[in-house]
Amino acid sequence: MQTLKHTDDPNRYANGWDKLKEIDGEAGEKVIESLKDIAPDLGRYIIEFAFGDIYARPGLDLKSREMATVAALTALGNAQPQLKVHIHGALNVGCTREEVVEVILQMAVYAGFPAALNGIAAAKEVFQERDA
Amino acid sequence: MQTLKHTDDPNRYANGWDKLKEIDGEAGEKVIESLKDIAPDLGRYIIEFAFGDIYARPGLDLKSREMATVAALTALGNAQPQLKVHIHGALNVGCTREEVVEVILQMAVYAGFPAALNGIAAAKEVFQERDA
Amino acid sequence: MQTLKHTDDPNRYANGWDKLKEIDGEAGEKVIESLKDIAPDLGRYIIEFAFGDIYARPGLDLKSREMATVAALTALGNAQPQLKVHIHGALNVGCTREEVVEVILQMAVYAGFPAALNGIAAAKEVFQERDA
Amino acid sequence: MQTLKHTDDPNRYANGWDKLKEIDGEAGEKVIESLKDIAPDLGRYIIEFAFGDIYARPGLDLKSREMATVAALTALGNAQPQLKVHIHGALNVGCTREEVVEVILQMAVYAGFPAALNGIAAAKEVFQERDA
Amino acid sequence: MQTLKHTDDPNRYANGWDKLKEIDGEAGEKVIESLKDIAPDLGRYIIEFAFGDIYARPGLDLKSREMATVAALTALGNAQPQLKVHIHGALNVGCTREEVVEVILQMAVYAGFPAALNGIAAAKEVFQERDA
Amino acid sequence: MQTLKHTDDPNRYANGWDKLKEIDGEAGEKVIESLKDIAPDLGRYIIEFAFGDIYARPGLDLKSREMATVAALTALGNAQPQLKVHIHGALNVGCTREEVVEVILQMAVYAGFPAALNGIAAAKEVFQERDA
Repeated sequence: MQTLKHTDDPNRYANGWDKLKEIDGEAGEKVIESLKDIAPDLGRYIIEFAFGDIYARPGLDLKSREMATVAALTALGNAQPQLKVHIHGALNVGCTREEVVEVILQMAVYAGFPAALNGIAAAKEVFQERDA
Repeated sequence: MQTLKHTDDPNRYANGWDKLKEIDGEAGEKVIESLKDIAPDLGRYIIEFAFGDIYARPGLDLKSREMATVAALTALGNAQPQLKVHIHGALNVGCTREEVVEVILQMAVYAGFPAALNGIAAAKEVFQERDA
Repeated sequence: MQTLKHTDDPNRYANGWDKLKEIDGEAGEKVIESLKDIAPDLGRYIIEFAFGDIYARPGLDLKSREMATVAALTALGNAQPQLKVHIHGALNVGCTREEVVEVILQMAVYAGFPAALNGIAAAKEVFQERDA
Repeated sequence: MQTLKHTDDPNRYANGWDKLKEIDGEAGEKVIESLKDIAPDLGRYIIEFAFGDIYARPGLDLKSREMATVAALTALGNAQPQLKVHIHGALNVGCTREEVVEVILQMAVYAGFPAALNGIAAAKEVFQERDA
Repeated sequence: MQTLKHTDDPNRYANGWDKLKEIDGEAGEKVIESLKDIAPDLGRYIIEFAFGDIYARPGLDLKSREMATVAALTALGNAQPQLKVHIHGALNVGCTREEVVEVILQMAVYAGFPAALNGIAAAKEVFQERDA
Repeated sequence: MQTLKHTDDPNRYANGWDKLKEIDGEAGEKVIESLKDIAPDLGRYIIEFAFGDIYARPGLDLKSREMATVAALTALGNAQPQLKVHIHGALNVGCTREEVVEVILQMAVYAGFPAALNGIAAAKEVFQERDA
């Protein structure tokens, strides 16, 4: 089989860290911080892979990326803390509160009303945190 | 408790049907058709509620709605036929193939690589159907 | 394709509201109330679609409907608040506590013991609320 | 801690086997048969635990037990072969086709429309098998 | 069909109880205790089936069994209390903290980073409980 | 916050590719191959992140890593093709067929019997492929 081009970038970590701060802000930094004593490499992979590799990709704007993440985490329904981080993220990169609510509400169709209700509860907490 | 405003619209069915045809096209019509003999009301609710109520809402453009749906169905990983319908839907309302692939690929971060791989397999089938 | 009969009912909202109060009682009203400031339409869809359309259907008695919901939410395991609302609902429409416990316990077979254990924990809280 | 009463019954296996045949019929026997060469004990646990222990319990009639199972498997959406077995089971113990369809359709509210659609597709196959 | 050998053991309950105490220790006993008033038979099935039948099986050592359970509960992401019990269990039967962290971290690949993050949070709580 | 040590390795791709071939063999190569035309970067991330970063980590032997993956994919129940690849992988790195069956069977306790049954069906197919 033909070997794929190796495109590993020595700046993945630095670029990922910038991206994480741009998108998730303080909430994202706290996630990395919380891993420092127990699983720092998981934090590193979040920076390098999730943000340095994936969010840095061309082909889809950050607003769409964050809305996709809010949709997925609402539908899965088992990652409430991460959903809150990414509702912050969506708002940080330019989504309106109305757009966030619309994405979550639409999940009633694909994952059921309980998933949508718990997503809205997360949004409510995030909106209150930002208003405080 | 204050009664919410009743906004039920006599045209929900007709509007929903138009919306379904605009978004999911022939693939969507086939879903409704397949329910005719066994659960026609489920088809009706898809038309009235999913398309007449939800997709008709202002506040989020159709492209974003379909990308959110593709993200959620890829992440859930247990609704391959519906994922294919909505990959068609996303392309029908203006998403590029690259954007669809990006949304699915990003789900590796939030739902794991198997979910992303199976989402890409669905996209591959849809792209081939459209090229045929 | 043959157009399905449009059966939309101008009384969906009123009927749904009555049904919600009959089944879920105060716990259900609180859900709608909690949505008022952030996503009132999600509350409206719960009333109109979930209760006005679905729970109002003939063909299955309310006891069986609530037991099916308790089974599903126990098995999914990611919607604890809604499971509690529907354990109240099951008891409100005539299920015994023993029947509720049996439905939840049976989910050990289909969704594993953790799902059953967390379902029983929800039932315990509901029974205590009703005894208080 | 007080030791729970040990109620293990030497007839668990025989009783479970009778129960399995009563409920799931030939479809259930085929499941056990398929395990014979690779994991016969998994078949034994299905007989002893799922049917000998759980389905044999008093406190909930078999019709309600099978409807709860159909609800849960429809909602989980990742166990289509077992859903089909239990749609047969529900019909074998006295559910009508309409009741089965109602339970599945209701799952649109709790697990989303894709789950309900795939459940209806399973029911359609089962009804056709029984008509053949 | 050939009848499977009935191997039901009169000592399932006693053996299961010993196994549960060996593996999950005090955390496991508390689970059984919490069921006493509401669903004691669920506790009995955990002892008899989960521990008396499954964990007592030859063919896989206890360390591997507990790591498999930690992996599964991390990936499912909807059973945090049971995940904590089994992180205790894994450590009780000889896993190192590093091995537990590695299993959880690896789930980022198969169930996504949120699942891994919530698993690490559970491990952190368990490690702190054991250090206290 | 203290910057984590950047440990990105220029050999991630080459090391990951070797690891993938060692573990998943031909089945793994086919996954990468299938992505070439539609999402080659997803294949690259599998090589670099899943195999180059995660499977290459010290702290847990490959046998335990593959058993954890088989456990997780059986429990999730929505990634049958990937489960088959990793049953091959488990056998390739030294697990016995009995150990694979035990891990899958144990998932009946944590994710329910349908998940275990579908996992055993995957194992049966893999064993037959290897015997052919």
